[in-house]
Amino acid sequence: MADNGPLMWASVLEGTKNVVLKEVPVPKIGPNQVLVQIAAVGVCGSDVHYYLDGRIGDFIVEQPMILGHEASGTIVKVGADVPAERIGQRVSIEPQHVCRVCPQCKAGRYNLCEKIEFYATPPIDGAFADYAPIDADFAYPVPDSLSFEAAALCEPLSVGIWSNLKAGTQPGSRLLIAGGGPIGIIIAQTAKAFGADEVIISDIVPGRRELALKLGADRVVDPAQTDFADPGMQVDAFIDASGAEAAIAAGILAVRGNGRVILVGMSPNPNQNLPTATIASRELILTGIFRYANTWPTAIKLVSSGKVDLDSLVTGRFGLDKVVEALESTHNPATLKSIVVPSQRG
Amino acid sequence: MADNGPLMWASVLEGTKNVVLKEVPVPKIGPNQVLVQIAAVGVCGSDVHYYLDGRIGDFIVEQPMILGHEASGTIVKVGADVPAERIGQRVSIEPQHVCRVCPQCKAGRYNLCEKIEFYATPPIDGAFADYAPIDADFAYPVPDSLSFEAAALCEPLSVGIWSNLKAGTQPGSRLLIAGGGPIGIIIAQTAKAFGADEVIISDIVPGRRELALKLGADRVVDPAQTDFADPGMQVDAFIDASGAEAAIAAGILAVRGNGRVILVGMSPNPNQNLPTATIASRELILTGIFRYANTWPTAIKLVSSGKVDLDSLVTGRFGLDKVVEALESTHNPATLKSIVVPSQRG
Amino acid sequence: MADNGPLMWASVLEGTKNVVLKEVPVPKIGPNQVLVQIAAVGVCGSDVHYYLDGRIGDFIVEQPMILGHEASGTIVKVGADVPAERIGQRVSIEPQHVCRVCPQCKAGRYNLCEKIEFYATPPIDGAFADYAPIDADFAYPVPDSLSFEAAALCEPLSVGIWSNLKAGTQPGSRLLIAGGGPIGIIIAQTAKAFGADEVIISDIVPGRRELALKLGADRVVDPAQTDFADPGMQVDAFIDASGAEAAIAAGILAVRGNGRVILVGMSPNPNQNLPTATIASRELILTGIFRYANTWPTAIKLVSSGKVDLDSLVTGRFGLDKVVEALESTHNPATLKSIVVPSQRG
Amino acid sequence: MADNGPLMWASVLEGTKNVVLKEVPVPKIGPNQVLVQIAAVGVCGSDVHYYLDGRIGDFIVEQPMILGHEASGTIVKVGADVPAERIGQRVSIEPQHVCRVCPQCKAGRYNLCEKIEFYATPPIDGAFADYAPIDADFAYPVPDSLSFEAAALCEPLSVGIWSNLKAGTQPGSRLLIAGGGPIGIIIAQTAKAFGADEVIISDIVPGRRELALKLGADRVVDPAQTDFADPGMQVDAFIDASGAEAAIAAGILAVRGNGRVILVGMSPNPNQNLPTATIASRELILTGIFRYANTWPTAIKLVSSGKVDLDSLVTGRFGLDKVVEALESTHNPATLKSIVVPSQRG
Repeated sequence: MADNGPLMWASVLEGTKNVVLKEVPVPKIGPNQVLVQIAAVGVCGSDVHYYLDGRIGDFIVEQPMILGHEASGTIVKVGADVPAERIGQRVSIEPQHVCRVCPQCKAGRYNLCEKIEFYATPPIDGAFADYAPIDADFAYPVPDSLSFEAAALCEPLSVGIWSNLKAGTQPGSRLLIAGGGPIGIIIAQTAKAFGADEVIISDIVPGRRELALKLGADRVVDPAQTDFADPGMQVDAFIDASGAEAAIAAGILAVRGNGRVILVGMSPNPNQNLPTATIASRELILTGIFRYANTWPTAIKLVSSGKVDLDSLVTGRFGLDKVVEALESTHNPATLKSIVVPSQRG
Repeated sequence: MADNGPLMWASVLEGTKNVVLKEVPVPKIGPNQVLVQIAAVGVCGSDVHYYLDGRIGDFIVEQPMILGHEASGTIVKVGADVPAERIGQRVSIEPQHVCRVCPQCKAGRYNLCEKIEFYATPPIDGAFADYAPIDADFAYPVPDSLSFEAAALCEPLSVGIWSNLKAGTQPGSRLLIAGGGPIGIIIAQTAKAFGADEVIISDIVPGRRELALKLGADRVVDPAQTDFADPGMQVDAFIDASGAEAAIAAGILAVRGNGRVILVGMSPNPNQNLPTATIASRELILTGIFRYANTWPTAIKLVSSGKVDLDSLVTGRFGLDKVVEALESTHNPATLKSIVVPSQRG
Repeated sequence: MADNGPLMWASVLEGTKNVVLKEVPVPKIGPNQVLVQIAAVGVCGSDVHYYLDGRIGDFIVEQPMILGHEASGTIVKVGADVPAERIGQRVSIEPQHVCRVCPQCKAGRYNLCEKIEFYATPPIDGAFADYAPIDADFAYPVPDSLSFEAAALCEPLSVGIWSNLKAGTQPGSRLLIAGGGPIGIIIAQTAKAFGADEVIISDIVPGRRELALKLGADRVVDPAQTDFADPGMQVDAFIDASGAEAAIAAGILAVRGNGRVILVGMSPNPNQNLPTATIASRELILTGIFRYANTWPTAIKLVSSGKVDLDSLVTGRFGLDKVVEALESTHNPATLKSIVVPSQRG
Repeated sequence: MADNGPLMWASVLEGTKNVVLKEVPVPKIGPNQVLVQIAAVGVCGSDVHYYLDGRIGDFIVEQPMILGHEASGTIVKVGADVPAERIGQRVSIEPQHVCRVCPQCKAGRYNLCEKIEFYATPPIDGAFADYAPIDADFAYPVPDSLSFEAAALCEPLSVGIWSNLKAGTQPGSRLLIAGGGPIGIIIAQTAKAFGADEVIISDIVPGRRELALKLGADRVVDPAQTDFADPGMQVDAFIDASGAEAAIAAGILAVRGNGRVILVGMSPNPNQNLPTATIASRELILTGIFRYANTWPTAIKLVSSGKVDLDSLVTGRFGLDKVVEALESTHNPATLKSIVVPSQRG
């Protein structure tokens, strides 16, 4: 045990629905990395999927793994090539490690790096722990005015930014978002920060529509009652945050000629039936997002300036010994974003 | 009858599989239009569809209609606002009439005009006739060196240009095209003119693969024998010219991260099952084309300079009284492009 | 005189510094045009230039001309091809008439049409008059909540939108604007609506800096006291609204690698000395704007939603008999935007 | 001396016009680097500038430095993290070393990295030597069919590719290039590979015009006899490879509305007088290039496929002891590209 150096507490997924609080070695860092003492970690739907099913598509949990990838904290140690002054910095973590030499990395699309390692994607450990390692340039200093929780939620905010960049949101834009969960709401808030004129959220659950209206949507619709092909529903872009085939197919019908369709929601089904004749005859541009690249500086500015309010999305806090409760809390319709606070553990 | 002015011969689709050579009034032209004496008209798959089925998707032939939209000829009459000097010009026809005032037109995407009228798309007459009217700026003068047949085939060449523009083809590009018919071959030739490094055509028919290899592809593959997910098959863009769901789904698997997928082929099925998880995780950009916009000047330059050879695609010529034979000729595997010559009629 | 039909009052520039209120024929309209009873017209710097100098660069006033191009009003008459229902509509005027058939128009860049006619650009009459003609699709209906003055000022707002589109302004952007006059302030307000993080206005006049800070800038600087090459001044884009060579050269030094430089301000000198070595070594992208295209729908949404406040820019109102006073008012440092109200004439 | 390990021969610039052949330590390589035994090095105008003047703009030679940055060779040693199989590979060198963590690097614009180190740019050594170190991913394997000389000239070819990417060259494009030297000619050849319809080279020297016409231009003009504002001269893009203020100002006048202006040539003067009124009124897009990024894979394909012929540009070969002669040879009008062959040294 001495070989592994000092220990830390971590909440480890040891099997399906089996999370154990235990001591594990503090991660080692490379010369260009820093070690962050984790202060806050948001719970994401993907964490819940790994907890419940042990997999998401082709990504399968085959050995014990620490979940959690929406994280912030304080730098407590730096690698040999990182300035020592960074120790003590409060940072938001972009939870990716990329090769920086493949064509995708060199072209600026490092999220498509073939050797990418991502927190809490098997077999890489995440941040439901005292400490986590990250490349120095992926640990972004945040102003003192930013809470650790907001700093952690720069991760889902990056999803919102990346989605809106792909959607081309700008003043005058009218946007349809399918799915009024935390990601749908963050996409909506981000769209408004991009200047969108009108953001419509579609969700089948009345309570989520209500919340969406309160937290960022200009208008909400019940998809069961909506004819998305109606000219009055026409939008410049449609962002799916539901992963539901029916929602995607319906949303596409609302998009104007040459408009955009962005797939954000994850679906259990890797194939989906899409209205390709409509896509072609309107020359719609359909794409999806795989995490994000180069979004953190903007994320921090959007929160710091108050244009996006991440703190108000937090509906619960859980100690490191309550990670199961945090994961289970997402089934509660009143939950928007649960936060794990590693420093609390019984 | 006298009210309708002078008459001309036209080959009229009067019902499913019912084409009649008859005299009809010479079309009237507006002040900004010209009347073109048609010299050559290419036969397109869509003409065949209307002939056989009386419809393509939501477009239904409900009254007698003249087919043919790949056309060239000589200006014989000009509208009040068109310079008389244009009479006598040999022209290639871009067979669209658009409103020029809607947001799509004003943004330069006139092919997405909601009031668009297109030759041989119900209820608009096409060019299997002595004469056809067209807006003056959509009748493009061609050099004397260009044959009328090549001038007519600037229409499918425009499909090739528009596809490659959407695909972002440039030097270094590796391209996969599904479907080795006339459109697939023209897309391939155009891709080479855009500087593509390697163009691969996939077709299930051996004879078409052979022809494709001769007429523009650098390499051909049999989809039944090909694993499109194999790294060795990786391409920058995939253009579907087959309309076949299986071909589209397979081709998408070959596209590198952030690559493009362009739907060109028409399918009887308005919905298709696509690998959306792959699209999202690679951030592929999928779109389709609906005709083209602003391609004619480039088309004429590509043919004039010899970079694309349209004349060699012509495999048969038919008089106006042989339009049925021209339409039926497309079932012959040896046919690449049949041309109707209106001035010949028995 | 009877041949010219009904008369209207207009304020006519008959020579340098010679503006005369007189009766002139009500303009005729074409089949696709409408006649607008003018309600409000903003005074622009270019109006003042024509008034004082009789020219702007190569555009020379050679015959009597009506000034004013920032205009709104009510449709009182429609051409043969325009629905009669439009009579009575309150509209904002996009003061251009373009050919719609040249390559630039067809590509969506109609502001670069070689046959463009623009209000108050010789020899085309503008809107300091009871009535003005405009193409039906360039007369944009505005909601009742919008004042006629705000509707008129959608014109300079369009300059702001077009500038920011060219500058690529988005959340996270830091922007430098040279010139704190009405255009600089509108560009700043628009930049904020595009989500810009920080907008810095540079102006040599203290009073204008003060006003700029109050009306849209996040920060103002005195160029005489500022080192634009200092890393702390680094911006994503620089928009010049001053036309001053020294301001342009200095502003360019502040732009980060691959950032944008947008020339908006007009200069008496058609050539300017620019730091080309900096442009090349940073791969800056420099362009300018010539009016705008396709901006009105966004302009109307930005004002209607309150994201941009045009009414507060109005500092004076003048009757049609007081056009000289309106033009001269622009020399008063306290003037931001003067409005001519044609219905008032002594 | 023993501390420095093995020695190699290098041609060292020890002062203005003072180049000395001497033994120096073989460069050390980092874990992600390779050591390349240099086979061929092209002589570039910038080498000549450093040789003659000891500086280019702000880059000043303050200590002995090895010139030469257009290089190819064979990998003879690999760093700890590079697969040993790479030893023996024939490679083309992209002569940059970048930080990979700054915002520009992470956005894919690594040529704008603020910490960039570039061969033969003070104080970084270049390749007029037996060996040179480079990051493993910047040493690109070339096919056996490619000569070492062509592999070395992938560097200026990258300038050609980067220029044409910035210029948006594609089928149909008409291009004006000022300057018929090696770079102008390579840009022209590359433009044709991008599908350009017509490439015009302007050069004041008759002999260079003649050579340009032979080696890639479709047409040449004498700027002294040419009215670039004449509509017949209108082009889609203008690339300056001359660095001459008069040539840049004149070329801009030829560019159509919304066309591009790309500054490639280096000028002794960091500021130049440009027709900004024309830039603004036509909304031209002006930018420059600073080396290149992500061009090597395309460069190698262009040469391998024969679309660009680099071998025919070589007009002389010089041993390592003849570097002065190689540098001086560029003053000979008959010289296009001189090559230094390090393995030859008396």
